[in-house]
Amino acid sequence: MIIQLEPNISDSQKEKIVNDLQTKRFKIVDVKTQLNQYLVAIGKLDFDLRQIGHIEGILDIHVVTDTYQLVSKKWKTNPTQIDLGDGVIIGEGHLSLMAGPCSIEDEEKTELIAKFLSEQGIRIMRGGVFKPRSSPYSFRGLGVDGLKMFYKVCRKHGIKIISEVMQVSQIAEMYDYVDVFQVGARNTQNFNLLDELGRVDKPVLIKRGISGSVDELLQSAEYVFSGGNEKLILCERGIRTYETSSRNTLDLNSVPILKEKSHLPVIVDPSHGIGIRDFVEPMALASIAAGADGIIMEIHHEPEKAASDGAQTLNFEEAAQLTKRVRSLYGLRSSWL
Amino acid sequence: MIIQLEPNISDSQKEKIVNDLQTKRFKIVDVKTQLNQYLVAIGKLDFDLRQIGHIEGILDIHVVTDTYQLVSKKWKTNPTQIDLGDGVIIGEGHLSLMAGPCSIEDEEKTELIAKFLSEQGIRIMRGGVFKPRSSPYSFRGLGVDGLKMFYKVCRKHGIKIISEVMQVSQIAEMYDYVDVFQVGARNTQNFNLLDELGRVDKPVLIKRGISGSVDELLQSAEYVFSGGNEKLILCERGIRTYETSSRNTLDLNSVPILKEKSHLPVIVDPSHGIGIRDFVEPMALASIAAGADGIIMEIHHEPEKAASDGAQTLNFEEAAQLTKRVRSLYGLRSSWL
Amino acid sequence: MIIQLEPNISDSQKEKIVNDLQTKRFKIVDVKTQLNQYLVAIGKLDFDLRQIGHIEGILDIHVVTDTYQLVSKKWKTNPTQIDLGDGVIIGEGHLSLMAGPCSIEDEEKTELIAKFLSEQGIRIMRGGVFKPRSSPYSFRGLGVDGLKMFYKVCRKHGIKIISEVMQVSQIAEMYDYVDVFQVGARNTQNFNLLDELGRVDKPVLIKRGISGSVDELLQSAEYVFSGGNEKLILCERGIRTYETSSRNTLDLNSVPILKEKSHLPVIVDPSHGIGIRDFVEPMALASIAAGADGIIMEIHHEPEKAASDGAQTLNFEEAAQLTKRVRSLYGLRSSWL
Amino acid sequence: MIIQLEPNISDSQKEKIVNDLQTKRFKIVDVKTQLNQYLVAIGKLDFDLRQIGHIEGILDIHVVTDTYQLVSKKWKTNPTQIDLGDGVIIGEGHLSLMAGPCSIEDEEKTELIAKFLSEQGIRIMRGGVFKPRSSPYSFRGLGVDGLKMFYKVCRKHGIKIISEVMQVSQIAEMYDYVDVFQVGARNTQNFNLLDELGRVDKPVLIKRGISGSVDELLQSAEYVFSGGNEKLILCERGIRTYETSSRNTLDLNSVPILKEKSHLPVIVDPSHGIGIRDFVEPMALASIAAGADGIIMEIHHEPEKAASDGAQTLNFEEAAQLTKRVRSLYGLRSSWL
Repeated sequence: MIIQLEPNISDSQKEKIVNDLQTKRFKIVDVKTQLNQYLVAIGKLDFDLRQIGHIEGILDIHVVTDTYQLVSKKWKTNPTQIDLGDGVIIGEGHLSLMAGPCSIEDEEKTELIAKFLSEQGIRIMRGGVFKPRSSPYSFRGLGVDGLKMFYKVCRKHGIKIISEVMQVSQIAEMYDYVDVFQVGARNTQNFNLLDELGRVDKPVLIKRGISGSVDELLQSAEYVFSGGNEKLILCERGIRTYETSSRNTLDLNSVPILKEKSHLPVIVDPSHGIGIRDFVEPMALASIAAGADGIIMEIHHEPEKAASDGAQTLNFEEAAQLTKRVRSLYGLRSSWL
Repeated sequence: MIIQLEPNISDSQKEKIVNDLQTKRFKIVDVKTQLNQYLVAIGKLDFDLRQIGHIEGILDIHVVTDTYQLVSKKWKTNPTQIDLGDGVIIGEGHLSLMAGPCSIEDEEKTELIAKFLSEQGIRIMRGGVFKPRSSPYSFRGLGVDGLKMFYKVCRKHGIKIISEVMQVSQIAEMYDYVDVFQVGARNTQNFNLLDELGRVDKPVLIKRGISGSVDELLQSAEYVFSGGNEKLILCERGIRTYETSSRNTLDLNSVPILKEKSHLPVIVDPSHGIGIRDFVEPMALASIAAGADGIIMEIHHEPEKAASDGAQTLNFEEAAQLTKRVRSLYGLRSSWL
Repeated sequence: MIIQLEPNISDSQKEKIVNDLQTKRFKIVDVKTQLNQYLVAIGKLDFDLRQIGHIEGILDIHVVTDTYQLVSKKWKTNPTQIDLGDGVIIGEGHLSLMAGPCSIEDEEKTELIAKFLSEQGIRIMRGGVFKPRSSPYSFRGLGVDGLKMFYKVCRKHGIKIISEVMQVSQIAEMYDYVDVFQVGARNTQNFNLLDELGRVDKPVLIKRGISGSVDELLQSAEYVFSGGNEKLILCERGIRTYETSSRNTLDLNSVPILKEKSHLPVIVDPSHGIGIRDFVEPMALASIAAGADGIIMEIHHEPEKAASDGAQTLNFEEAAQLTKRVRSLYGLRSSWL
Repeated sequence: MIIQLEPNISDSQKEKIVNDLQTKRFKIVDVKTQLNQYLVAIGKLDFDLRQIGHIEGILDIHVVTDTYQLVSKKWKTNPTQIDLGDGVIIGEGHLSLMAGPCSIEDEEKTELIAKFLSEQGIRIMRGGVFKPRSSPYSFRGLGVDGLKMFYKVCRKHGIKIISEVMQVSQIAEMYDYVDVFQVGARNTQNFNLLDELGRVDKPVLIKRGISGSVDELLQSAEYVFSGGNEKLILCERGIRTYETSSRNTLDLNSVPILKEKSHLPVIVDPSHGIGIRDFVEPMALASIAAGADGIIMEIHHEPEKAASDGAQTLNFEEAAQLTKRVRSLYGLRSSWL
């Protein structure tokens, strides 16, 4: 159950509500985000809601029976939009395109890619400087110095940055140089990291776990939201199955399901979702047709020479065509509303 | 290795080729379809192809290293089209829509649905009369009498029929009353059934197995083709994974992959693929965006009262909207070629 | 709900019970096995059972709420034993060992293996003559002639035969030459085959599907039982997962779960379950430790030269050691009862 | 390739080797563990090893072609044993039993359980004070204060402690109060945590990921080893599959496979592996039969009242019986060596 509080609620009013609910054997989580104040009450609802509905300081009460609460569409029916500034908005009504290399390499290459994005009207650049790698002997990224260079280049082109954060101590290091923190598929259930990102006032994109369920993704988002950060984006990136003809199994079923269950924007990563360069375009188109709010894709001026993930990375020509087609399709979809 | 033979090859010429290849330790499968004659030679190619290329009676030789041969795009690069007559064609350049109830019920209901399809310009009706059911106590379909009624109704409306065949003995019973035999997900590896369908001159749509791989689907198609029947259609219908928020996990990655590996048409079943009525439309649209040649969907005038699968069945209004949108999207896609 | 009938119930008594239950909106399936007579009543129990409990001709009534009925342990609590004759019994209190090649090859080799089994005191020989193969170009077995030879050799050594049946038409052909029909993992949901095996009076071993659930295996067994054949054996053989270090993922969890849910014997196939020769022994031991009633394994005098599945087939020395150890472990387990 | 260095190698000798290998285009990782010094050389071996074999300072060279190196059995063939002191040894030749509640609760309960373990001769107690929970609203453990109490109780009974560490900052906090750090299934690929545990001189047990592969588990162990900590234990705890009759699918295939691939001890967690109290015993027995070096299980004096995971937790009576039987079985297994 979510109890949305009046902005100007007094401490004593709030305490009274908390006490009342605790008497009714609810566990209360006090949530103060950048935007609002809530009490999340976990427990069994076995009394008439009208008993508390009239209490002063309460703006609204919503009963949510899912394992997640604040990210549920059952209480917040209008879709969340996230404003990155300079006209870059993620969420319903805006097609978000995020593109860039798997790993940030040197300044010259970063400049080339940023320039290309700028020409294409793509406003958000992706690129990792901390890379999670299965083997300790693989390239692990340029670190925070690479991020600073990445930031400098992007700002020059008026481009926003999304980059992966892998552990709590990186949040502060990265804070000044990213517009969106990305939580990778191996960290979807790194609960300490999620807790800490709840204390940050920058948007967080959470990828679905390697074999994460839709519900687990929403619960992970709930961690960040209940920690205080409402600016959340969900990302489908494929799941692990027995099928070996593609790198992952892109589960586009999750797109309409997430959009129905939650008010948060949903982005799809077709690059990891299929893992085969020639098929990134059809899967990007399928993602938009399924209702996604945007896509995040890997591009590089010379995919064959990319530091990582070259096999699924588009070159500029492919990316330009994909961008154009995705926009046409989004236009067609918008005409149906 | 596929050796396509001259249509007018003599028996002695053919025997000579077979002997020659057997000497080279190849296993030879003699394939005579309704359209062509082939020898499929299975073994290790360790000689210069020119040694046999000039032999009389050979039209063409193709080396295919996949586990499947005749269904591979490596030797037949132009896409297969299947003509059901009366202008109904399945394959590249044609958007195939197949719709109907999960199970055929009584004549009145069948008539209602066929009439609706006719009004929508949908030319193929699906409907089961033999139903595979996990439990022996569930409704198993009307059998061949139901099929005859189904046939009569469809012919009146100029509509073609696709219906599931579950075992060898049903092939003959059904033959006069179907335009396309459907092999269900539980029978994808029923090899005796596939063998027998190879001897039939009517098209066969093969659904991917419950947890079948892309390669297994192609090998199952190879069974039918090498048995003599070239008129094959592949169907993605979702696979079994750990995810429980949808009935199956629709694997749209398979669409571009199958289209790249094989020359056969690819149809998607979004109804089984997601299993939730409200989300059939987005998944149908995503299927077309991913490159599918058509969709097969469950519709019913009163889904709540359908004999089976009501939860994933569209009503007429939903089906009409989906049809219109799928056609628009297919038009957009076609404009990119 | 299962209504066990008196052996000497009259037709009119039975008709009365059926009518009564139909009035209460139950669907009635009349089951007559080689041993007993039942009515399986499917529907919602919304009346007091005592209303029908006293009716003449009824021996016992059991309410079973699972999707399967007659195979459930909820009504038949003592374990089913299957007597193959000559002292060969499968089920609780007997360790069943079944061994032999993947495919039956020539008489000399069959003789060699049968002799070895006889020396080891292994009383059941496995071996396929109809082989389900993913590719149409692979070896498909010797057919019924091979089976006759197999039978002749085994009878000489006092050994029972289990062999796979792939389609309805093979049942009659095989009937005289097998002691147990095996339904393979690709046919677990071949419902027509299961129906037909219900009409046979020889035991049937049903393998779990390639990605079949425990419940589906029980429902498949229910098909055969409700068709009239009570002599059923369940077999765990590994399921399909994302893990590639073994051929399948042997799901030994299913052993205690099946033993709890059903009264039927449970056999494990460690050869297919792990698919790596060196590890068949530990998995066989683990199967027995988990509570299995026996194992079925692939052995060959020269595994490297076996017609199929050589990589998971034990040689005689390995098989002899495994047999000895499995027996010791079974002895230890028995001492705990 | 692993180059084991002489203990007394000089800096200049080492530098020479590194330079030489870098010239040959190898990437060199300098590994100094509590016990030994290694260079791990990653790259393509395209020269004759004898070119470097004679260089001074090199003790031994091993070519390992797996994605993991130092944890591979290919270079270190004798099994690793981990000595926790006071006669508690984990690894080949020792049956390790670890038991305790899912979450540590109050002192009185901890005392009860520790006393029981002591009576049973179980020398390692498990218990979480930092609990990873899917939902932010679930109980998350007592934290480091609970650990201190846990430590005090265990030391009194001469019992060693294993407890889960969830993030880097907890390592220092926990260091003085644990004998083994446990990395949970959601953190198997938390690479920063693994890196940091490489700098610790206490043993680390790494659970296989929720849907982790055998190879990924070994690569995660490689992180810790190459970070400097050789005291590693692998733990199978079940993987995520489509099967819903058990909580996870315990993959006992992994036991002989891990034992073959690596020199590290392998422990199984049957409690999480099946998730159903009544079946923990058979799966524990199966684990030992499959070759595991021990088991870790959840026990509680009143499972019904446990703070978490009650459904899979054994009571004292069940645990005592399991312990006795597991020991008998381990004895039988040992007699075969």
